[in-house]
Amino acid sequence: MIIVLKPGTKKEEYDHVIDRVKEYGFKPHPIVGEERTVIACVGDERDKTQLHQLESLDYVESVVPILKPFKLASKETKPRSVVKVGNIEIGNSQFVVMAGPCSVETKEQILLSAEQVKKAGAHILRGGAFKPRTSPYSFQGLEEEGLKYMAEAREKTGLPFVTEVIQPGDVALIEKYADMFQIGARNMQNFALLKEVGRAKKPVLLKRGMSSTYKELLMSAEYIMSQGNYNVVLCERGIRTFEDYTRNTFDLTAVPALKELSHLPVIVDPSHGTGVRSLIPPMAKAAIPVGADGLIIEVHPNPEKAFSDGAQSLTPDQFGALMNDLKRYAPLENKHL
Amino acid sequence: MIIVLKPGTKKEEYDHVIDRVKEYGFKPHPIVGEERTVIACVGDERDKTQLHQLESLDYVESVVPILKPFKLASKETKPRSVVKVGNIEIGNSQFVVMAGPCSVETKEQILLSAEQVKKAGAHILRGGAFKPRTSPYSFQGLEEEGLKYMAEAREKTGLPFVTEVIQPGDVALIEKYADMFQIGARNMQNFALLKEVGRAKKPVLLKRGMSSTYKELLMSAEYIMSQGNYNVVLCERGIRTFEDYTRNTFDLTAVPALKELSHLPVIVDPSHGTGVRSLIPPMAKAAIPVGADGLIIEVHPNPEKAFSDGAQSLTPDQFGALMNDLKRYAPLENKHL
Amino acid sequence: MIIVLKPGTKKEEYDHVIDRVKEYGFKPHPIVGEERTVIACVGDERDKTQLHQLESLDYVESVVPILKPFKLASKETKPRSVVKVGNIEIGNSQFVVMAGPCSVETKEQILLSAEQVKKAGAHILRGGAFKPRTSPYSFQGLEEEGLKYMAEAREKTGLPFVTEVIQPGDVALIEKYADMFQIGARNMQNFALLKEVGRAKKPVLLKRGMSSTYKELLMSAEYIMSQGNYNVVLCERGIRTFEDYTRNTFDLTAVPALKELSHLPVIVDPSHGTGVRSLIPPMAKAAIPVGADGLIIEVHPNPEKAFSDGAQSLTPDQFGALMNDLKRYAPLENKHL
Amino acid sequence: MIIVLKPGTKKEEYDHVIDRVKEYGFKPHPIVGEERTVIACVGDERDKTQLHQLESLDYVESVVPILKPFKLASKETKPRSVVKVGNIEIGNSQFVVMAGPCSVETKEQILLSAEQVKKAGAHILRGGAFKPRTSPYSFQGLEEEGLKYMAEAREKTGLPFVTEVIQPGDVALIEKYADMFQIGARNMQNFALLKEVGRAKKPVLLKRGMSSTYKELLMSAEYIMSQGNYNVVLCERGIRTFEDYTRNTFDLTAVPALKELSHLPVIVDPSHGTGVRSLIPPMAKAAIPVGADGLIIEVHPNPEKAFSDGAQSLTPDQFGALMNDLKRYAPLENKHL
Repeated sequence: MIIVLKPGTKKEEYDHVIDRVKEYGFKPHPIVGEERTVIACVGDERDKTQLHQLESLDYVESVVPILKPFKLASKETKPRSVVKVGNIEIGNSQFVVMAGPCSVETKEQILLSAEQVKKAGAHILRGGAFKPRTSPYSFQGLEEEGLKYMAEAREKTGLPFVTEVIQPGDVALIEKYADMFQIGARNMQNFALLKEVGRAKKPVLLKRGMSSTYKELLMSAEYIMSQGNYNVVLCERGIRTFEDYTRNTFDLTAVPALKELSHLPVIVDPSHGTGVRSLIPPMAKAAIPVGADGLIIEVHPNPEKAFSDGAQSLTPDQFGALMNDLKRYAPLENKHL
Repeated sequence: MIIVLKPGTKKEEYDHVIDRVKEYGFKPHPIVGEERTVIACVGDERDKTQLHQLESLDYVESVVPILKPFKLASKETKPRSVVKVGNIEIGNSQFVVMAGPCSVETKEQILLSAEQVKKAGAHILRGGAFKPRTSPYSFQGLEEEGLKYMAEAREKTGLPFVTEVIQPGDVALIEKYADMFQIGARNMQNFALLKEVGRAKKPVLLKRGMSSTYKELLMSAEYIMSQGNYNVVLCERGIRTFEDYTRNTFDLTAVPALKELSHLPVIVDPSHGTGVRSLIPPMAKAAIPVGADGLIIEVHPNPEKAFSDGAQSLTPDQFGALMNDLKRYAPLENKHL
Repeated sequence: MIIVLKPGTKKEEYDHVIDRVKEYGFKPHPIVGEERTVIACVGDERDKTQLHQLESLDYVESVVPILKPFKLASKETKPRSVVKVGNIEIGNSQFVVMAGPCSVETKEQILLSAEQVKKAGAHILRGGAFKPRTSPYSFQGLEEEGLKYMAEAREKTGLPFVTEVIQPGDVALIEKYADMFQIGARNMQNFALLKEVGRAKKPVLLKRGMSSTYKELLMSAEYIMSQGNYNVVLCERGIRTFEDYTRNTFDLTAVPALKELSHLPVIVDPSHGTGVRSLIPPMAKAAIPVGADGLIIEVHPNPEKAFSDGAQSLTPDQFGALMNDLKRYAPLENKHL
Repeated sequence: MIIVLKPGTKKEEYDHVIDRVKEYGFKPHPIVGEERTVIACVGDERDKTQLHQLESLDYVESVVPILKPFKLASKETKPRSVVKVGNIEIGNSQFVVMAGPCSVETKEQILLSAEQVKKAGAHILRGGAFKPRTSPYSFQGLEEEGLKYMAEAREKTGLPFVTEVIQPGDVALIEKYADMFQIGARNMQNFALLKEVGRAKKPVLLKRGMSSTYKELLMSAEYIMSQGNYNVVLCERGIRTFEDYTRNTFDLTAVPALKELSHLPVIVDPSHGTGVRSLIPPMAKAAIPVGADGLIIEVHPNPEKAFSDGAQSLTPDQFGALMNDLKRYAPLENKHL
């Protein structure tokens, strides 16, 4: 930490800061500049977060952190992680595609979806049984029934599946059925939920919040990891900006940025990232040169009749064409599908 | 809803849209313009959200909603609501001040805080027992012990108290102690939690999410109300923007805007809204001319030693001075403290 | 400046940084921490901006500025400025109201507007003769003819006037007629224009850019001042965010923030800040408790027939009512209208 | 346009709106819904922008445009444009790379840069002679001298060059030397400048503003085109968001989105888009799958000593490696370098 004092700070105020710095277990190094005195504090600022409260002193201009606040998720601890979902490895040489409908609507719909995405070459099935919808009047998901249908789809196709969990109380139930938890963007800072999946055994797909920075996403991964579950896959899915032609602003730079900050695998979600069907295939292909480990994408047998997200779902044919494109791109980054 | 067709739409595509519109229970009114055909659909678009999925058709350019998506929270159903917290009425002629520390740290700290804010004239005590912190290594709250201390503070001072709930499983426990639930900004779209407090009996303080629009805030209120709990107070607490001098961008315009959209009371939180102690008093005073029903503010006996949010906590003296200012301002809007 | 080196930096890399720091005229103070070495550099970083380029070295993690980058505009040079426009003082005990239509449309319209706002108590007339419109097919302003009409309105009413300048080549012409230049939000970083008004003699109303921080606004003021024109008034007029109920997000916190960073007067523009007529009066009143020195507001004799900004223009009656409210509020901050 | 009336609108108010609609040359089609009456107005809303002012009536809830506001730039007028810069065609099968330093610093620096980027395979030289810097104390560019050096570099290497113009008064001078004008992000809505380059003969590289939507970018292109200059190339260069790890948020989705809205070529600028050297190569490669017609990139012989933008400049070696990667990617989209 660097503590910047305001001009005109008095001797006793300066001494008070030095005392506090020592009290909190840091070694202070004051440097007297032309206009400001700054105090560099040597010690692990990630453990001792109280030092930051000194900003509440009137004569302290700012307290500037030097270290990044995450440890377990940090690139400095490990160069690269591989996360297994069923028998699929994310973070290795395979470019992993998760595909399926936004919601599990009926048994027929999810079985048909699973066959269609399997046929096109997807590796993991996606589908929501517990739906976080912005309107209480919209379809809220089939809940356990939906999980059962997905399990049946897995049996038929061999595809492991990922599904969203929206509250701590559902973690045990979902773990019984699913191969991977999804934490949605709206729950990225639902810390009670993060702790609960952190205590579970299945891997976690952690989506970036709509107004969260890369470092905050990594702090949420740190929450899960701090409870013992190291199998976290990060997912960029678009952030909220002023642009209204797309549903979100899809921030592909997140991929190489997260990869230089962390060892965790990173995938992208161009369906939510753009929210516009015609924009999904080009943005999905771009996942490869930016270095993503895979992608998650919405595919529906009949988007026009989808219960949710129809306008951002690919048809099975469109998905098939995209998979062919991805197969042409992957080798350029030494990846395969 | 207005459905805009792309130029060059064929007869059978047009017919298909008309059929769907009727199937979903709306009456279609096509208007052929010079460059576009639009179909106005008469019916209650809030109940029948499926119409929106027609945007997934390639020849549909856009589906434009006309009605606002909330009903129970809407101004059109009721001119004004008053919400009671203990014996305090929010939304009436009193400008209600909720004050106290960010976290309940010790019994002594919360008792002292309660006495200090009571003495200065606050009406409701605030304090967090379950803390949603961005770092898993930071203080996470005293949990039930903290609730007991707050209840003791209520007994000593007569102040009802509001405290944050962060997961559905805690609702029943918190309801036993607290007078009002707080849903924090990070949980504004934690729909499982909204439903749970919607089934509880105590009133709810619902904070605007960091990247949520006014209408999304009202949709979250609608979630709570749709479960039977109509006692919702809205709270503007700053949104996330590019400006980094402040912790958030405090959007005071939310107050008159929410009041023309909804009958629910609206208060503001200048502590989180600005995150900078020196900026809190002017922004708190501004709550009165914009028409807020009250405010919630962080006050700590010794901010420098606070476990959290020290830099945005007022000292008891600063809070006392602010209360005096508010008393001078309130009569200009026919309010009193 | 604080230079943070990456972990594992080699001796010769470290030496290279130290050499550069000295070469650029700073005194280096290295501090070896547990995980990072940081080098505090003592010297005036505002003059010697090249030091920042060291961030381009692969082994430099970041270069963190300590001083604010502006000098002439800084609070540290002067506690408070007063800027005169005609015989009106901005930044003193008068709360100054600038009012008038968005565009000068006809001679009759601006003369009538001037009389109406004068009658209600405005101090300065506003009106655009050179209009920066987002569509080339919209009304672009009456140009010099419009300036003449405004001058005539000044003669009739005694109100000095402010008008927008949109290119360096117009500065001399506008200075012949107007009492104050306005630099619009879209031109806040039009540095050629800033320099040109910096060489003029008339005062400048500098509006905050739609995506500019407080410090960037002050850097733009610094541009004007660095050319010799110290008569700059800052104006908050809303920033661009995801919220779409309002035209912009009106950031009133800018007022106390700018006032603790700078000695320059600060006014606000609730018309552009909100873009919605019904929201303007409450937000205008809030200008007083937050400490603004005045406001600028759009008033039109017949908003429905305005050439521009009708939906955010007050009628003369609404403006009169607002002026009465402002007169009630001003004394609470020891101001008068 | 669709005009939505508030509930409870009176007969005479309704009649007034209908009269205005006709007066402005539109044909009104009223539709009476369950809660709202809407009036669909048939006519060309792009020419007759006054209709929008009806939003200023108290009983009008909103005025919703149906047509996009641009014409000349619209995809509906033309499927695809090719813009020639010297003998280079942008928008055709060549993926065009513009490269060079941020600023022209000395004759030697720009000649060396030109040779280096030419050798690596760049098609167009970039370099700034008129620099829009946020600090008046930073290097402001060599002006005409810089243009002369660039012309000399062109002679030596055969590379046409693009350079930024920052005010209308410089257009004629720059046109004498340069092959293409650049309008920077901060000037995207400098309408006086847009008009002036619109009257010039050389092509224009128009960068997206930091807080501008796709449609606003196209409206700025429309400004240039409305003056007769149809040779406009659009450029995505990052927008401003809350994310602070990168200098901007690089919005690659802009490419396919602009291409479905407009016939104009689109290139991208990953240097400003990310602002971080290590992130530039992956994001540059992604330009190909998203369908860009080329890119513009900062390369400096010695970034550490650059006068500006050192931390986001590639070294010549890094640029050479990137060019090799681009050559591997381009054929997948039937492009070549």
